[in-house]
Amino acid sequence: MKTNEINVGIVGTQFMGRAHSNAYLDVSHFFDLPAEPVLRAACDNDPVSLDAFARRFGWQDKEADWARMVSRDDVDLVDICTPNSLHLPVAVAAARAGKHVICEKPLAMDADEARRMLDAAREADVRHMVAFNYRRVPALALARQLVEQGKIGRIFHFNAVYYQDWLVDPAFPMVWRHDKKIGGSGAHGDMNAHIVDLARFLVGEVEAVCGAQEVFIRERKTRDGKGVGTVTADDATQFLARFRDGAMGVFCATRFATGRKNFLRLELFGSEGSLVFNLERLNELEYYSRGDEETEQGFRSILVTESVHPYLKAWWPPGHIIGWEHTFIHEIGDLLLAIANHEDVKPDFYDGLRCQQVMDAVGQSAEQGRWVAVPGE
Amino acid sequence: MKTNEINVGIVGTQFMGRAHSNAYLDVSHFFDLPAEPVLRAACDNDPVSLDAFARRFGWQDKEADWARMVSRDDVDLVDICTPNSLHLPVAVAAARAGKHVICEKPLAMDADEARRMLDAAREADVRHMVAFNYRRVPALALARQLVEQGKIGRIFHFNAVYYQDWLVDPAFPMVWRHDKKIGGSGAHGDMNAHIVDLARFLVGEVEAVCGAQEVFIRERKTRDGKGVGTVTADDATQFLARFRDGAMGVFCATRFATGRKNFLRLELFGSEGSLVFNLERLNELEYYSRGDEETEQGFRSILVTESVHPYLKAWWPPGHIIGWEHTFIHEIGDLLLAIANHEDVKPDFYDGLRCQQVMDAVGQSAEQGRWVAVPGE
Amino acid sequence: MKTNEINVGIVGTQFMGRAHSNAYLDVSHFFDLPAEPVLRAACDNDPVSLDAFARRFGWQDKEADWARMVSRDDVDLVDICTPNSLHLPVAVAAARAGKHVICEKPLAMDADEARRMLDAAREADVRHMVAFNYRRVPALALARQLVEQGKIGRIFHFNAVYYQDWLVDPAFPMVWRHDKKIGGSGAHGDMNAHIVDLARFLVGEVEAVCGAQEVFIRERKTRDGKGVGTVTADDATQFLARFRDGAMGVFCATRFATGRKNFLRLELFGSEGSLVFNLERLNELEYYSRGDEETEQGFRSILVTESVHPYLKAWWPPGHIIGWEHTFIHEIGDLLLAIANHEDVKPDFYDGLRCQQVMDAVGQSAEQGRWVAVPGE
Amino acid sequence: MKTNEINVGIVGTQFMGRAHSNAYLDVSHFFDLPAEPVLRAACDNDPVSLDAFARRFGWQDKEADWARMVSRDDVDLVDICTPNSLHLPVAVAAARAGKHVICEKPLAMDADEARRMLDAAREADVRHMVAFNYRRVPALALARQLVEQGKIGRIFHFNAVYYQDWLVDPAFPMVWRHDKKIGGSGAHGDMNAHIVDLARFLVGEVEAVCGAQEVFIRERKTRDGKGVGTVTADDATQFLARFRDGAMGVFCATRFATGRKNFLRLELFGSEGSLVFNLERLNELEYYSRGDEETEQGFRSILVTESVHPYLKAWWPPGHIIGWEHTFIHEIGDLLLAIANHEDVKPDFYDGLRCQQVMDAVGQSAEQGRWVAVPGE
Repeated sequence: MKTNEINVGIVGTQFMGRAHSNAYLDVSHFFDLPAEPVLRAACDNDPVSLDAFARRFGWQDKEADWARMVSRDDVDLVDICTPNSLHLPVAVAAARAGKHVICEKPLAMDADEARRMLDAAREADVRHMVAFNYRRVPALALARQLVEQGKIGRIFHFNAVYYQDWLVDPAFPMVWRHDKKIGGSGAHGDMNAHIVDLARFLVGEVEAVCGAQEVFIRERKTRDGKGVGTVTADDATQFLARFRDGAMGVFCATRFATGRKNFLRLELFGSEGSLVFNLERLNELEYYSRGDEETEQGFRSILVTESVHPYLKAWWPPGHIIGWEHTFIHEIGDLLLAIANHEDVKPDFYDGLRCQQVMDAVGQSAEQGRWVAVPGE
Repeated sequence: MKTNEINVGIVGTQFMGRAHSNAYLDVSHFFDLPAEPVLRAACDNDPVSLDAFARRFGWQDKEADWARMVSRDDVDLVDICTPNSLHLPVAVAAARAGKHVICEKPLAMDADEARRMLDAAREADVRHMVAFNYRRVPALALARQLVEQGKIGRIFHFNAVYYQDWLVDPAFPMVWRHDKKIGGSGAHGDMNAHIVDLARFLVGEVEAVCGAQEVFIRERKTRDGKGVGTVTADDATQFLARFRDGAMGVFCATRFATGRKNFLRLELFGSEGSLVFNLERLNELEYYSRGDEETEQGFRSILVTESVHPYLKAWWPPGHIIGWEHTFIHEIGDLLLAIANHEDVKPDFYDGLRCQQVMDAVGQSAEQGRWVAVPGE
Repeated sequence: MKTNEINVGIVGTQFMGRAHSNAYLDVSHFFDLPAEPVLRAACDNDPVSLDAFARRFGWQDKEADWARMVSRDDVDLVDICTPNSLHLPVAVAAARAGKHVICEKPLAMDADEARRMLDAAREADVRHMVAFNYRRVPALALARQLVEQGKIGRIFHFNAVYYQDWLVDPAFPMVWRHDKKIGGSGAHGDMNAHIVDLARFLVGEVEAVCGAQEVFIRERKTRDGKGVGTVTADDATQFLARFRDGAMGVFCATRFATGRKNFLRLELFGSEGSLVFNLERLNELEYYSRGDEETEQGFRSILVTESVHPYLKAWWPPGHIIGWEHTFIHEIGDLLLAIANHEDVKPDFYDGLRCQQVMDAVGQSAEQGRWVAVPGE
Repeated sequence: MKTNEINVGIVGTQFMGRAHSNAYLDVSHFFDLPAEPVLRAACDNDPVSLDAFARRFGWQDKEADWARMVSRDDVDLVDICTPNSLHLPVAVAAARAGKHVICEKPLAMDADEARRMLDAAREADVRHMVAFNYRRVPALALARQLVEQGKIGRIFHFNAVYYQDWLVDPAFPMVWRHDKKIGGSGAHGDMNAHIVDLARFLVGEVEAVCGAQEVFIRERKTRDGKGVGTVTADDATQFLARFRDGAMGVFCATRFATGRKNFLRLELFGSEGSLVFNLERLNELEYYSRGDEETEQGFRSILVTESVHPYLKAWWPPGHIIGWEHTFIHEIGDLLLAIANHEDVKPDFYDGLRCQQVMDAVGQSAEQGRWVAVPGE
């Protein structure tokens, strides 16, 4: 193991496993890093999936058992891409073994789990990151810059939606994501987690929430077509919010937004200007400034592909757009840099916990039909 | 008074008075009506405004007192464009005097008032209409057709916003709309009233709501610059809703959406398709159909200017767009037709009442921090 | 005849006749004019059309013969909405009779006719206007302001298209517009005339052109379905241009742009900024400024509905959009003002002539397969 | 050298060298290929650039001289990313050495060179490809499918622009691309080459053209700031075209379209429907169908990210967009597949030649001020 290498062990080989693998492979072709990632070992309890995955992305070793994986001497960083119910045990074990940890979102099944993960990581004094990759969409990193520079002033409104439509088809079968016990949640955990994190990234802490959840199609056939399962994870969750600094919020996540595929829209309205973003056009940021001359004010569509924009110097000339997968390359790049430089990196398990507290409060609120306060820090 | 004339008396000479006057003047140049409107008398307690208004639009007579106006023998139809607090007395007096009535929205200060207005109109057996003009945006009339034809199937989500920004400027002075006692409400009554009516028009009855209201700037200078007034009407009101047929709803009305001028966006997601609309582009309707071939599905932007589209046969060739004021021409046209034909017209005071019940429930909910049921019919 | 009245006689009762009538009727409801228009007489050789038209819009008298019309003592202004082949005789006769004249575009069948019309109007010392109404789309009036203020600097490119699609249907029958002898031209005269005028309005004089014309469907059934006619007017005309000040131009007008209804798009690229406009969204102007901060540059969509924008003070609050017909109200308003104030108004017959010279040069060029210079002033 | 490996030697280490390297590295992580690419050797005459490039992307060997490179036994495929003036000698030498060749566009300095390259490749019976990567934008591959299925019918118009703005800044220094002798051409060769190829891909052969070229800023400072160079390559080239099958075309390529970064827009209008595309939003295709129901026709925006869309099965779930660089991955994937399967691949040097013939004809036409026929096949 060389000092300028960071050895990665990944747990989970599905969608997120692929996206992370691609990031480890590509990152040093575009970013100058003090240490290069080495794809040391991949872990999955399904040997067929594991084998195909390891071969495709060039993971050197294979492990069937995550407990063995996190204890390997030749692994510096554990990357958790498992179903949500495994986040806690893998992350805690990895931290205790002195490994740095990156964990997919949502961080945990609930805030209690998230806190235990945070405590474990802090005690072990390892780097910890939760993979809210959308903070590293260049347009959203730019949005954060503009907010920090006061360009939109005091924020009045943060309205966010996350729309997908893959469950509209009643023939879509039961999968693990429909089972609350494994997935932890449905649209709420999978999609609201992203926009809650972006709310904290761009506006600040959420103080109170009031939500509603729904399952539109309660029974679905099992994959083999023989049985019928009961959907327990929410198809849609929407909620109102109040931010600590006085802003109002609206959040809506659904897998029943027919025609919207991965449509995450943010609208921030402030005293000096506004920002609008949509993930299906992730290279663009709309910005309105009250500082423009009176006759010329309007939402401008910034094509966030200039070398002066966050992360873009590494990529192509202006107008040559990047894709969704690039957010992971940025994330992994920043993580590797933080590990090499012994520095903290954001969003970390604390952010994962804070997000989870909002999520939990929404769940409670939906059950109780009233506003619920989010715990203080 | 000829049988083929309908004599109009208008109360109120401001923004809405102008829009209605224009409609009476233009309607028969484009629509074939069995009876023509006559601009008989205009009423305002400010003689200077009244004089200018009557001269500009050709109102034949002037009245300083609405009570005299509604009792004139030569008036068939009373058109109420006053501040909200006057809607009840004028409408009830007009109905009792046997006049047909059209009243600006929101119909009343609260549901109790709205019910008294409805009762008075029904007892007098006159035509009554509440001026939710956006039902007659051609694109929204088309949306209704598509919904009725089952083109979007069972509706899962109705997400609506109404964004304006004219109160963002802290130098904007106190006006009557800021005073709850006169205006009845702020963004809620002025703007949510529209989208609640459109929700009922396109989806159906609302069963329960949970809302939040905010005043972002609590003190404003009076017009003369000498005093300071306290803003009591809401700057923004947002709420969640459940519809009787199982759809979820989100509503957000605000006068603090910097950069948005008259941005009323509807998003309807259903089991067979979706619809999206924005009032700032009122000639367009976005429609997604799951019935399109798999590789070719997408939101299509229908330019609603064809002769086969609602109201458009009367206007210009395809692609020659119409404006906001045309919605009033359509509304007045349909009202005059209904009067001439002794038929009911929608939306009427019943719709005004139902809308008001939703509005009131939101107000209660915001005070109590919990969901509130909307009364049944 | 009162001094504060301008008596109008209109020739032609079809599409343009309706649009102009509407303008005369509406203009003084929104603009303060020193003189009001009076709809004195309408003229058409088809008595049925004439009768319906006069009744609908309230024209006081009817004339079957335009020669009688232009010699009436009680007419101050002659408005020519006839097929193109009649523009010359009516305009010249009207001017010689001392009438002010507004004439629909294109001004004439060719530059020679246009010059005779200009000469007649100048000799008679009457006001003359050619109805290039798009100069008075507020967004384009704003574009002109921005150009004049140097906001986009030296202009490199003017790329314009005018797309319609009503001839794509092969079942669409022969109409007079298909006959070059009556219509003067097809897409070229009807549609390129508009964008050539806008080119002159926004960039300056055209020096040379090189064009191509096409008839895609050469034979069409006559209206009665019995005969077949040969289409002689162009379905599409496109050309390259060089402007006197060094800009390059591309123009494309077609009635075969399937799906585009009245899509007139302008793109101006300059050394300091750019402008983009589309008539199907006529309330919007896109503006890019190189003066914006480096990280924040982008095309901004100006919603041209503010009271600081051209013509908008007369209309509705911000975001309440206007329609295509309003361009005529602005045009007629400015014309009446000019007549009342004894001032010139633009665009006049000189502009009509200059436009025609460009159009003629394109026609020549298309025949000869080479660049053709536009005559000097 | 294993049978399931294809050894690549690349010549040129700049922008295109980076894009191709990334493609070789990524392709087998997403596509199943019968043979994997090996990054055997990179070549550049600047040792510093070469060293950095080889290290970053993992090229195993380095060569200073392309002649040595193309004669290496351990290279199967030569990838030419040099300035245009070197395309001919490298490609011909590579083919004669029995190597497969992929060459960046435009294929050559003129049609004569292109033909010699084609002849050499055919004689040597090697695979040859010209890197018109935009054919493999999924949205454009889909456009081709729709055209082939007759979905837009007979094509009337093909209007294409390619806008960039990096030369608007007068301080931008002289670079090799400004020198016609090295670059071969400016906007024309660099940008029109792409849209001419797409015209052939989507519509068919071009029969005749008429063009204009311009240099807006004739003198630029040299990079060291001391000298001044004369720009000989065109800043902008635009031309009209006629296609063999009767369609009309307009093409405009410019580096002076202020605010447009990599804006390649295609508009195809046909008898049954239309297609619109813009490279800055490369995951979207707009499609209008006359087959849609009359009241529901409109341009639909297809988000080309479904597994049923070309190339997308290999990537992410719907709505997770890809970027510009992915077009090279698709291109390289198809090339490697063709090599492994001993099959031809398109676009090849024949397409490069045909494109060049159109380009040459435009150049001639611009000099002569008249239409010029494109040579037959």
